[in-house]
Amino acid sequence: MPASIGDVADRAGVSVATVSRALRGLPNVAPSTRERVLEAAATLGYVADARAAGLASGHTRTVGVAVPLIGPWFFSQVLAGVEAVVTARDLDVLLMTVDDAAGRERLAAGARLRGRVDGLIVVDIALTEAQKAELAANDLPAVVVGAEAEALPCVLVDNVEVGRTATSHLLELGHTRIALIGHAREDPLHFPVPEERRRGYHEALACAGIAPDPALEVDGNFSVAGGAEAATALLDRVDPPTAILAMSDEMAFGCLRVARQRGLAVPGDLSVIGVDDHDVSPAWDLTTVSQPVHRVGGQAAELLLAVMDAGATSPARIALPTSLRHRGTTGPPMVPTEPSPLGQDALR
Amino acid sequence: MPASIGDVADRAGVSVATVSRALRGLPNVAPSTRERVLEAAATLGYVADARAAGLASGHTRTVGVAVPLIGPWFFSQVLAGVEAVVTARDLDVLLMTVDDAAGRERLAAGARLRGRVDGLIVVDIALTEAQKAELAANDLPAVVVGAEAEALPCVLVDNVEVGRTATSHLLELGHTRIALIGHAREDPLHFPVPEERRRGYHEALACAGIAPDPALEVDGNFSVAGGAEAATALLDRVDPPTAILAMSDEMAFGCLRVARQRGLAVPGDLSVIGVDDHDVSPAWDLTTVSQPVHRVGGQAAELLLAVMDAGATSPARIALPTSLRHRGTTGPPMVPTEPSPLGQDALR
Repeated sequence: MPASIGDVADRAGVSVATVSRALRGLPNVAPSTRERVLEAAATLGYVADARAAGLASGHTRTVGVAVPLIGPWFFSQVLAGVEAVVTARDLDVLLMTVDDAAGRERLAAGARLRGRVDGLIVVDIALTEAQKAELAANDLPAVVVGAEAEALPCVLVDNVEVGRTATSHLLELGHTRIALIGHAREDPLHFPVPEERRRGYHEALACAGIAPDPALEVDGNFSVAGGAEAATALLDRVDPPTAILAMSDEMAFGCLRVARQRGLAVPGDLSVIGVDDHDVSPAWDLTTVSQPVHRVGGQAAELLLAVMDAGATSPARIALPTSLRHRGTTGPPMVPTEPSPLGQDALR
Repeated sequence: MPASIGDVADRAGVSVATVSRALRGLPNVAPSTRERVLEAAATLGYVADARAAGLASGHTRTVGVAVPLIGPWFFSQVLAGVEAVVTARDLDVLLMTVDDAAGRERLAAGARLRGRVDGLIVVDIALTEAQKAELAANDLPAVVVGAEAEALPCVLVDNVEVGRTATSHLLELGHTRIALIGHAREDPLHFPVPEERRRGYHEALACAGIAPDPALEVDGNFSVAGGAEAATALLDRVDPPTAILAMSDEMAFGCLRVARQRGLAVPGDLSVIGVDDHDVSPAWDLTTVSQPVHRVGGQAAELLLAVMDAGATSPARIALPTSLRHRGTTGPPMVPTEPSPLGQDALR
């Protein structure tokens, strides 16, 4: 006999109404309660009857997720976070890659989506404000991940703060020659996150009275191999950096590989900090700025389900916290660099 | 003006007919030619007109991909490989997670899919032979990844050979006490790959005259954290192994973390070999059995498109090669273990 909603309520130790609210992604359910209900439902194999529950999600039983790339860890984890939430509602995910201007236009117009999905999550795609407004004016419930959106619910982390936190950490350790491995400015994928992190990097340098050196800002293509190439170029300079901020842990892994190949001590000869807190990063002892990637996807899915169930509401804006994980790959430079002209006080 | 098929042919240096065959995933196009055509089409932004091309894919413009999990590197890379091929045909991916018996039954029956996708790729899901036959009897074109299938095209690597290769490598280095970190036998996800790798491990041990010790076979949940837990349990034994074969590089990373935390020299005190050749593995200098994961996804998508275009054909079986990448994490045991009773010759 299939599990009933009452079985789930019993197992989770909550009321049937709470189970219903939790499974439908409605607000006013504590995250820990929602986790418990989802776990109980998963354990019992409980599947809500979409029609009985009167869900908007009954139409196509599908949620669209648009991403610029699939392979990198970040996108696979956001997707896994979305999937965990929507699967509990017996919905599937329609995956779309949108990596050029024409794709962004079509996405905003909704033509590609009509009748195919009940809602849409847009992850790290640089829609213009006009395109976001166009998307919001569609009938289709939509949530934006990784960017601000006035007329749409959004889930994000403060990426300017991410860049600032990482750079300040290196400045506090005494580094003044800090390289940034990110994404080319003329980026065909054109997602907004790298520019925000770069802004934070510039702001932190400015606070320390350090003029940014454009030669220290290198494209790393958000891959291990790209990070290694970028680190090679930086370390081949006559005036190499003493520290590298890589905008993703995968690029930081590439930097560590090059450092090892060259026999450089980390962090003595070279400090390296990443962004993400990738699954693998604790194993590397990598210092990084952690962001709750799986949670970003889950939160976006919960917001979307709430809009699908309840219709239009004033759009929520959920900023999730990030934090510095100081591990073993960052430390003071072994050979002290020249003090900044403004003196040590300027480093904070 | 949008690019024409002639533009693509010019750029790729092939005939229009070859472009058409390559883009429709038909056979008799050399892989290198197909790559060149896909690259030219991508560069020029060429999108085939589905109706003009008379494609079966014109119905839903969607290909289903069923996986047991989304987060792990392997699945994200297979998905990226599929996506690269189907995007060149302007198709989207409907992602389904199938991780229990009920899901497998529904998948085989096709009820969840009718009218939603034009074709299906089933990745590492342990369908029974009856379920595969049921799937093949549906109208829906389908391709199986990671398992044999009599009535359906399949793409796989020889996972018995993967287990044998990794174990033989450790035996040749002189190890006799070799642990296996894999997946629990009573696995709710129940995908066939771990059992095949385990069989190869047992076969290689048997060839060397070594009786398998069940205490050395531990569940690592195919994650970094699971690998670390498994390694901890193994190294806490009074008779710890001198070498670990982890069934994925992610679990191997967890082992290396534990080794470092305990101050064990790798490979002197502990050799570690993984399976995959994860993006990050060269950076770790991890010895591994490499499999062409992205290519597995791409190949499956090409096969599927060929079936969608050409209708039923005798099912292809494509076995892609794997290979040992001997890097720095495996070597002879520092303290020689007792020779196997059958002597050194048996270690081959």
